[in-house]
Amino acid sequence: MLYKTMSDEELFNEREKLTKEYDEICAKNLQLDMSRGKPNTAQLDISMGMMKGLADSPLVGEDGVDCRNYGTLDGIIEAKRLLSAMIECPIDNIIIYGNSSLNVMYDTVSRSMTHGVCGSTPWMKLDGTVKFLCPVPGYDRHFAITEFFGIEMINIPMDSNGPDMDLVEKYVSSDPMVKGIWCVPKYSNPSGITYSDEVVRRFAALKPAAEDFRIYWDNAYCIHHLFDEPENQDHILEILDECAKAGNPDMVYKFCSTSKVTFPGSGIAAVAASKKNIDFIKKQLTIQTIGHDKVNQLRHVKFFGGFDGMTEHMKRHAAILRPKFKTVLDTLETEIAPLGIAEWTNPRGGYFISLNTMDGCAKRVVELCKNAGVKLTGAGATYPYGKDPHDSNIRIAPTYPESDELKAACGVLVTCLKLASAEKLIAERS
Amino acid sequence: MLYKTMSDEELFNEREKLTKEYDEICAKNLQLDMSRGKPNTAQLDISMGMMKGLADSPLVGEDGVDCRNYGTLDGIIEAKRLLSAMIECPIDNIIIYGNSSLNVMYDTVSRSMTHGVCGSTPWMKLDGTVKFLCPVPGYDRHFAITEFFGIEMINIPMDSNGPDMDLVEKYVSSDPMVKGIWCVPKYSNPSGITYSDEVVRRFAALKPAAEDFRIYWDNAYCIHHLFDEPENQDHILEILDECAKAGNPDMVYKFCSTSKVTFPGSGIAAVAASKKNIDFIKKQLTIQTIGHDKVNQLRHVKFFGGFDGMTEHMKRHAAILRPKFKTVLDTLETEIAPLGIAEWTNPRGGYFISLNTMDGCAKRVVELCKNAGVKLTGAGATYPYGKDPHDSNIRIAPTYPESDELKAACGVLVTCLKLASAEKLIAERS
Repeated sequence: MLYKTMSDEELFNEREKLTKEYDEICAKNLQLDMSRGKPNTAQLDISMGMMKGLADSPLVGEDGVDCRNYGTLDGIIEAKRLLSAMIECPIDNIIIYGNSSLNVMYDTVSRSMTHGVCGSTPWMKLDGTVKFLCPVPGYDRHFAITEFFGIEMINIPMDSNGPDMDLVEKYVSSDPMVKGIWCVPKYSNPSGITYSDEVVRRFAALKPAAEDFRIYWDNAYCIHHLFDEPENQDHILEILDECAKAGNPDMVYKFCSTSKVTFPGSGIAAVAASKKNIDFIKKQLTIQTIGHDKVNQLRHVKFFGGFDGMTEHMKRHAAILRPKFKTVLDTLETEIAPLGIAEWTNPRGGYFISLNTMDGCAKRVVELCKNAGVKLTGAGATYPYGKDPHDSNIRIAPTYPESDELKAACGVLVTCLKLASAEKLIAERS
Repeated sequence: MLYKTMSDEELFNEREKLTKEYDEICAKNLQLDMSRGKPNTAQLDISMGMMKGLADSPLVGEDGVDCRNYGTLDGIIEAKRLLSAMIECPIDNIIIYGNSSLNVMYDTVSRSMTHGVCGSTPWMKLDGTVKFLCPVPGYDRHFAITEFFGIEMINIPMDSNGPDMDLVEKYVSSDPMVKGIWCVPKYSNPSGITYSDEVVRRFAALKPAAEDFRIYWDNAYCIHHLFDEPENQDHILEILDECAKAGNPDMVYKFCSTSKVTFPGSGIAAVAASKKNIDFIKKQLTIQTIGHDKVNQLRHVKFFGGFDGMTEHMKRHAAILRPKFKTVLDTLETEIAPLGIAEWTNPRGGYFISLNTMDGCAKRVVELCKNAGVKLTGAGATYPYGKDPHDSNIRIAPTYPESDELKAACGVLVTCLKLASAEKLIAERS
């Protein structure tokens, strides 16, 4: 029965029942975590072979470079080949970095602050405040970078096709202080949606007022499908190519990493961009470092053999993750759908499910969960400055907990969601 | 016979003889490289055991952290213990980074440009130009960082005790735009000298005009002795401790890495500093990354066991490097000392020998060597902006070439040095 159609008495009774349930849960002293998009132990185990792959290797790259020594600023050729297949770009348009694409994105913004973009004025030397567009809900760590550098963030609503492109076009074409937009275009964090072809084409055809406007295309989940059959996977137009076709070859930076392919924190990351961008980046990179970890690059190449091996490996991840997503979605479908108190996404890849409560309930749900021993991503985290204007979005990360723990956590979540909703409706009626 | 005491005729004959020798060398089409401080293959081979160390490890840290997953921003405890022993600081005063201490130094300067130092005004927001003191000759990659950020560099002459501290004190205490000084305090790059106790104490007792002045103490060669006997090793006062005793606990950042302990580019790096500095750095670091490569941290810890293991390992490096340094020094002593045309250092550790030609000869020597197929570090590289005011310093890097190649390269070097000196004296007399 929909909560909204309940009589006052029915709603009071429901709240009383839920409060009792909640108290019983609290008494269990649970310690569960659905807060971060971390792979679980079983996922990490499938990459353990990587630790043995170099034991009898001379650690020499295919072009003869000794991977143990200094040099090779932009990565060994075979690592470029692997990640350019992953990120879908020509091998000459990629730089292989260290262990973190977040670090690459941070450095990209930091460099723009101090040195501008391909010859433009350093952002710190501009009069006025640099602005970034932020499709919401989005990735909290993106927003943390721009906030750290004092960049003003502007919310752009998302729907199932991607960001509101009317709004994006308006800001980008009219305001020269709009220098960037954060995108997770495929299996988006947190909604799991993938940008439609039309959205990608409209991105590629943007006419920025700022010459140093760039699209920050964080392709974090490019091969992170939940299903093996191509018809059950999302596909996205290749943005570098679309930008080139639209006459905007330099307008996008594409980021990726193997953090959720092998080991988070011990993987390899990359940026792909036009030759002009790559050349500019390298001028800075050669001051910053002599080179990234080539042994780890070689380790990844040897482990996968090639991109086909990586694709097969991702199927093993999917097999582990599918039931976890199913647990969350089944619980929501069974327990919440009949009540009409929330909506959620049903992604075909990535690491998250995006849950929208009734307006004004997200913080309360997260608080209730926390006090019951279930950690969720903080409410508001998916919005710039941590401010969800509707206080309704909750990012659910089903990947890390073990199966039993996840079921328990989902049980707590739905109880808290019901309780917060009943409280809210009662407050509205009084 | 000293070149200076030769008659004009003797000098002409000498030049003629050398030109003939030089032409014969050029005809050999050599391809030799004494330009960079790179470990040689035999040095890399002694760390190959590291590739097998984790094959049967669960990759779990001693406090239970799964090193394969996200987290642990400042490094696993056992890596902190290892590198804090190496860099001589308390375990709470260190952050373990990724593969490159150069990157840590770059990031430290970059952060100061955009965010200041522990609450000071961001350097990019200051009126006027930030300045760094640069003991010379010094490390070209340090100078490249400060040049990249538009920081004005001021030469500070060095002698066998370290930088000219009268000059350092004068600049630091009088000019609030002097925000830093680059130091390689032990087995310095390129001179190989180690700062005396008095110099270290005067550093610690500086009274900076700028609250955000910091000493950039790049302890790159802290355990990189050429000899095993303590009496044949250099020892340096611990600067963090001295600064604390002098009432300047926050005045120094200390950097180190295992680049020349295990594999350059695949090692681990660290910064050590006061708690106030460490806390400030972490606030930025947590925006930049979720964490560095913990698996590689664990790999290093398992390989060495502890700092004693690392010390033993360094003896194996020394055994490989000693004969190489001897080759260069013996050649200079035999071939050049009697001619009075150059001076050089005789370091007990590190990676370089610093050669000073007669004024105005360094570029010519490097050019002659290059044309004869022997690559040296560019003349001037050891000075800010690549400008050696005396055109006399050449950095010799004996570590990388194999024994035969090194001997051949030294032979070429002394011929070129003699020829350039004879040319110079003849030009002066005419």
